[in-house]
Amino acid sequence: MYFPFRVCWIKDIVVAVTGENMETMKSIIQKYQHKGISLVEAGVTRHRSILNGLKALAGDQTDSRLSKPQVVIIHDAVRPFFEEDDLLKVVRAAREHGAAGAVRPLVSTVVSPSTEGCLDHSLERARYRASEMPQAFLFDVIYEAYQRCSDYDLEFGTECLQLALKYCHTNAKLVEGSPDLWKVTYKRDLYAAESIIKERISQEICIVMDMKEEKEHVGHLLEAVLKNELHHVKMTSVVPCHDGSSIQHIILGQCYSFVCMNVMTTDFQNTQKLLGMLEESNLSILYPVVVVSDEQKLQESLKQGAVIIAALIKERNSALLGQLLVA
Amino acid sequence: MYFPFRVCWIKDIVVAVTGENMETMKSIIQKYQHKGISLVEAGVTRHRSILNGLKALAGDQTDSRLSKPQVVIIHDAVRPFFEEDDLLKVVRAAREHGAAGAVRPLVSTVVSPSTEGCLDHSLERARYRASEMPQAFLFDVIYEAYQRCSDYDLEFGTECLQLALKYCHTNAKLVEGSPDLWKVTYKRDLYAAESIIKERISQEICIVMDMKEEKEHVGHLLEAVLKNELHHVKMTSVVPCHDGSSIQHIILGQCYSFVCMNVMTTDFQNTQKLLGMLEESNLSILYPVVVVSDEQKLQESLKQGAVIIAALIKERNSALLGQLLVA
Repeated sequence: MYFPFRVCWIKDIVVAVTGENMETMKSIIQKYQHKGISLVEAGVTRHRSILNGLKALAGDQTDSRLSKPQVVIIHDAVRPFFEEDDLLKVVRAAREHGAAGAVRPLVSTVVSPSTEGCLDHSLERARYRASEMPQAFLFDVIYEAYQRCSDYDLEFGTECLQLALKYCHTNAKLVEGSPDLWKVTYKRDLYAAESIIKERISQEICIVMDMKEEKEHVGHLLEAVLKNELHHVKMTSVVPCHDGSSIQHIILGQCYSFVCMNVMTTDFQNTQKLLGMLEESNLSILYPVVVVSDEQKLQESLKQGAVIIAALIKERNSALLGQLLVA
Repeated sequence: MYFPFRVCWIKDIVVAVTGENMETMKSIIQKYQHKGISLVEAGVTRHRSILNGLKALAGDQTDSRLSKPQVVIIHDAVRPFFEEDDLLKVVRAAREHGAAGAVRPLVSTVVSPSTEGCLDHSLERARYRASEMPQAFLFDVIYEAYQRCSDYDLEFGTECLQLALKYCHTNAKLVEGSPDLWKVTYKRDLYAAESIIKERISQEICIVMDMKEEKEHVGHLLEAVLKNELHHVKMTSVVPCHDGSSIQHIILGQCYSFVCMNVMTTDFQNTQKLLGMLEESNLSILYPVVVVSDEQKLQESLKQGAVIIAALIKERNSALLGQLLVA
């Protein structure tokens, strides 16, 4: 997940927000310390919201700290899973063609109903594409299109590329996008989005261990078994240093899953220390900490322990907070 | 989820299966004791598979036990979440119009690319629909259409309604379908499907309790707290009778979640008995049994217990099999 505010070449971000959600949005920006974001009041339709955003970027308002960009990207918040590469592709194409947008193959055939609700004709699926987001434009092209377009367009239109075509004679370049650009629309899409987020924040696990105890540290054994259980997961192991900077480094690197190994009972102070650092970090602590223990020696039940840890990391079930699970 | 074999007015089901999956499909049918299913060899394209299915139903093969139906429903296995009502609506419309299919509003605007991959024109979203499944036809209409259609249609076509229109001049009735008719296509759709299945099989919980112990049974208290935790869930409580018929009745009613209350230690024999019955039932035992216990009296931690039970029922995490969780 590349949030636009993590893409260094994006200068300003303008978000259209309804009046009733303005305060919530401000508190989110403050809480997560997002930089370079301006808020504008959303319109009653999608096109009116975009127009408000473009006006703010046009730089012709006296109180604005924004200056007119050469290229503007338009995106929907309901498509949270784009990659930086998706943005790069439409921006490059927009520089060349004046406008560009991501498209995807049609999943279902598109049909045209008659006035009686019967099939009039169906479209040949291979000849059409679903228009997705992000889209990018030379600012002058899309701003002119929005200034020229009719009230009917602003009220009922759905396609920015169509405005650029109709009012500026700019044929947008259509760029094949990734499947993850889909629009979170139905309840099932929320389920899918939740699973994708859980999958992505589980892509890296940090195993915190104390090397002083043993040469062949059980942490390294667990690391090997976990690698077998969780494919494609980046595994980092770290020995906490005195000032905690080694763990701070990993927290800053957007790791969301920590496994703290306690071989000796006294090691629990390491866990306490880690928890303290996570609480103090700017990461939102979304998920529970669960201790997996073993009645005999952990080596003998590493496999079962890895299965449990893998499941906890994948599902992040907050109801298990504080439970003692036995491997 | 209404599987077609649970809809009593469907006489025969023909499934097109590739040669390599034929044995697997036969074993699934045998394992779950599905009735009234015939298998035909799938073709290399969707339309060729459907044609093979229609041929089997036409009843002109000497060895066939099938007889020609008046109406045939065509459906995709990748759309598993239809309801009986979706089937009824297209069948009724097909009787009247000769053909009918479920449609949904377009989620994205549909665009037509030029040969250079630029925008040629975009379609007005409100004037088009996505064609989904199920579709229903008078058998004679769709069979004739498939017999008349060209090799090009069979190879590259995607729309049965279009064949009925082109070759039999039948304008299919378009029926608004539910959002759940979507096609499981991408990885995210598998995530969504898994969540929907988990949600649906969690819609009923059976609490098994022993009424002999107390008048104000703790099971009823738990039932009340669980109802508060799991909205829209049907809660059934049952006292096991001597021959187990009361629980058998619930198992047959497609309940997939059982909570067994043990107030006295000796009650564990009830749990053992329930487990035995579930194992013997024809239901596939998909999920783990986890015991939730309490160090003091359960009444004092009913709320926490209900949170844990609700999470276990929702997530059905097999890695927790055999764990002792403390409420």
